[in-house]
Amino acid sequence: MRTKLHEQLDDLTDRLALMCHLAGEAIGVATDALVQADLPLAEQVFDLNEQIEGARGPCEDQAMALLALQAPVAGDLRQVVTGVHLVSDLSRMGGLAQHVAASVRRRHPNHVTSGEAEELLTRMGRVATELAGLAEQVLRGRDPELAAELGRRDDELDDLHRRLLTLIQDPTWEGTIPTAVDVTLLGRFYERFGDYTVVVGRRVIFLVTGEQLTP
Amino acid sequence: MRTKLHEQLDDLTDRLALMCHLAGEAIGVATDALVQADLPLAEQVFDLNEQIEGARGPCEDQAMALLALQAPVAGDLRQVVTGVHLVSDLSRMGGLAQHVAASVRRRHPNHVTSGEAEELLTRMGRVATELAGLAEQVLRGRDPELAAELGRRDDELDDLHRRLLTLIQDPTWEGTIPTAVDVTLLGRFYERFGDYTVVVGRRVIFLVTGEQLTP
Repeated sequence: MRTKLHEQLDDLTDRLALMCHLAGEAIGVATDALVQADLPLAEQVFDLNEQIEGARGPCEDQAMALLALQAPVAGDLRQVVTGVHLVSDLSRMGGLAQHVAASVRRRHPNHVTSGEAEELLTRMGRVATELAGLAEQVLRGRDPELAAELGRRDDELDDLHRRLLTLIQDPTWEGTIPTAVDVTLLGRFYERFGDYTVVVGRRVIFLVTGEQLTP
Repeated sequence: MRTKLHEQLDDLTDRLALMCHLAGEAIGVATDALVQADLPLAEQVFDLNEQIEGARGPCEDQAMALLALQAPVAGDLRQVVTGVHLVSDLSRMGGLAQHVAASVRRRHPNHVTSGEAEELLTRMGRVATELAGLAEQVLRGRDPELAAELGRRDDELDDLHRRLLTLIQDPTWEGTIPTAVDVTLLGRFYERFGDYTVVVGRRVIFLVTGEQLTP
C-alpha cells in the first residue's frame, strides 16, 4: 500500500517537472519570437501553453485521488499539498510566457521594441529560461541549496527589470508611449515568471523542511 | 467526528471569507489613496496586506491538519483542496492592492496620474472593490449563480482596462512616458485583481459541482 502511494507521488513529481520543463521551453521560445519578431515561434508558445494547461487537469485529479484513496500523512501529505500549489504556479508561468508571445503576435511584422530595451528584455528572457531549468531540477532533486540559488538568480532578473524601467523613463529614450506600454508589460511578465520560479523553490524547501513560505 | 470536521470546514470558510474581505478593503483603500494622492491611506493598505498575510499561515495549517487528522473524502475533500488554492489566490489579491499603494507612495506628494486616466483607474478600482465583495459573498454562500455574475462584472473591468490602454496610447494623450509606465502597471494590477476574483468564483463552482477550472 505504501509502495503504491510512493509510486504515485513520484508520478506526480514527474508530471510537475514536465509542466515546469514546458514552461521553460515556452518562455525561451517566446523570447526567441520577441527577438526575431517571428510569428511561427510565437504560435508555438500558444501550443506549449496548451500542453501545460492539458497537464494541469490530470495533475489535479491525481492529487485529489491520492488524498482521497491513500490518506497520506506527514511528509507524504506535504508533498501532495505542495503539488496542488505547484500546479497553479506552473500554469501561471505558462500563461506569462503566452502573454509575451501575444505581444509579439500583436505587433507582428514589427518588432515590439528595439535597441537597448530589446536587449534588456532578451536578457530577462534568458535568465527566466535558466530559472525555469533550475526550478525543474529543484522539483526533481528536492535540493534546498539549489532552491536558494533560484532566489539569487532571480535578483539578477529584478536588476535587469529595474534597468529596463529606468531606461524607458529616461528623457533621452527614443521610444514612443505605445512601445513603453508594451515594454512595461513585457518586463512585468518576465519579472513575474521569475518570481514564480522562486515560489517553486520555496515550496520545495517547505516540502523538505516543513517551513512555511514567507512572503 | 463528522460534526467536528464540518465545524472545522466552516471555520476554514470563515477565515477565507475574512481574507477576501480584507483584500476588498485593501483595493478600496488603495484606490482612495490613488485618487487623493494620500500617503496615510497608502500606508493603511500595507497594514491590511500584512493582516492578509498573517491570516494565510493559520489557514494553511488548518487545511493541513484537516487533511491529516480527518481524512475527508468527496465533497469535504474538495472543500479543503479548494481552500488550499484560495489561500494563494486571496493572498495574491492582497499583494496586488499593495502594488497599487506602492505606486501612490512612490509618486507622493504628486498624483500618479490625472484627468481621464485617473478617472478610468478609479472606476477600475471601484469595480475591483465590488468584485471582491461579490467574491466574499460567493465564498460564504457558495452560490454558483453569483459566481457566474463575477465573470460578467469582470468583463466591465476588462473593458475599462482596454479603454485605459487605448487612451494612453493615443497621440493626443498629454501624459509622459513615466506616467504611461505607472498607468500601464496600475491597469494591470486592477485587471489581475479582477481575474483572481473570477478564479475564486470558479473554484466555488468546482466545490459545488465538481467541475474543474477551465482556463
